[in-house]
Amino acid sequence: MTGRVICAGLGPGDPDLMSVRSHRLISGARHIAYFRKAGRAGQARAIVEGMLREDAVEHAMEYPVTTELPFDGPEYKAALSSFYEQWAGRLAEIARKDDVVVLCEGDPFFYGSFMHLHVRLEGLVPVEIVPGITGMSGCWTATGVPVTWGDDVLTVCMATLPEDELTRRIAGTDALVVMKIGRNLPKLRRALEAAGKLEEAWLVERGTMAGEQVRMLAEIEGEVPYFAICVIHGRGRRP
Amino acid sequence: MTGRVICAGLGPGDPDLMSVRSHRLISGARHIAYFRKAGRAGQARAIVEGMLREDAVEHAMEYPVTTELPFDGPEYKAALSSFYEQWAGRLAEIARKDDVVVLCEGDPFFYGSFMHLHVRLEGLVPVEIVPGITGMSGCWTATGVPVTWGDDVLTVCMATLPEDELTRRIAGTDALVVMKIGRNLPKLRRALEAAGKLEEAWLVERGTMAGEQVRMLAEIEGEVPYFAICVIHGRGRRP
Repeated sequence: MTGRVICAGLGPGDPDLMSVRSHRLISGARHIAYFRKAGRAGQARAIVEGMLREDAVEHAMEYPVTTELPFDGPEYKAALSSFYEQWAGRLAEIARKDDVVVLCEGDPFFYGSFMHLHVRLEGLVPVEIVPGITGMSGCWTATGVPVTWGDDVLTVCMATLPEDELTRRIAGTDALVVMKIGRNLPKLRRALEAAGKLEEAWLVERGTMAGEQVRMLAEIEGEVPYFAICVIHGRGRRP
Repeated sequence: MTGRVICAGLGPGDPDLMSVRSHRLISGARHIAYFRKAGRAGQARAIVEGMLREDAVEHAMEYPVTTELPFDGPEYKAALSSFYEQWAGRLAEIARKDDVVVLCEGDPFFYGSFMHLHVRLEGLVPVEIVPGITGMSGCWTATGVPVTWGDDVLTVCMATLPEDELTRRIAGTDALVVMKIGRNLPKLRRALEAAGKLEEAWLVERGTMAGEQVRMLAEIEGEVPYFAICVIHGRGRRP
């Protein structure tokens, strides 16, 4: 056993914002693996375009299902579980001879898909994690306003939560980040309104990337992507 | 007016974890500014040791007071406010002719000191922010366990909060990060215990840096630094 599985955090999307270490590992890798939806180029792969060795072997890990299926259904769980199991085995097999670098958008241990491989690789092969700038950090930086000050409490939650819990979370925090928006936007808007914070909410799409959009959430008509991020800035102590 | 004030996020401490962009900006800068306590070398400056141009001009912004003074006292506020005011003016002056890069540990818009310059530079001079990997991300990566899964709620709060609020925050979240610990450790320990989560709490010191220590908080005897970080991992959906 000589190799490792190295998960390299890519940061929020702009390739210039990945860490020096991730950049070096990715540029030097003989084996590169990344998740993508079937039939898509994949966002992680797009971020490293032009960075890979000419002889790099690419391992596209194509999800068997999409985010459109119900997350809590048994079929979805079983399909994903077997998918992760299979790829953990294949990556461990590669790592018996060589390092393999797995690309991960954002920060791997923060809501990242790699974690599902990570739990299955434990004990099989050495694993190394390179953290990354989170997508939410790219988004709050894009708003041009600091997100947390002094003793502010920051709550990060998902728009997939039930509406009453979402409302309670929004009302009970200083600074707020909401992720996984997409079709949950109407529910999020109602929760923000019920919490009395709709006018403070920003909505950032494609933070740090081409096509970045920064808007007040209340002004949005129509749909937003699943990966759009809602930000409310804290207003804590300021000398 | 030709220059900018550029705040370069340094990440959690390991120089290899700053972004490619911060690395390039810092290596090429003619003017470098950073905060430090009077009489200390400064953590931000230590991170970039060996990276600066030979002819770089260094501007050490020395805090007039330390974290040991009461945060809410009027003297502390006045001294800090005048300090930030003065340095905002000096940085804007430099930026009339040249770029000046301000170093900022972690992610500038996330509880960073640069924000106090940022609000005072608005309208004076163009300002650019380069995000960074947060200190908390360096710490949860050091634990070797993913911090958030699926629909987990993450709460980030400060150990400076009143004990009852701290307890309530700890009890009411899935994943947790507590910062600004230091002399607040006994209070944090009581709050964790009251919330029934003491056994799940990790304590990370100097995450990603030389001397990194990762321990279970319950096992700690004695003191920990102000910048130590407490982490409780979420246990959300895992296919």
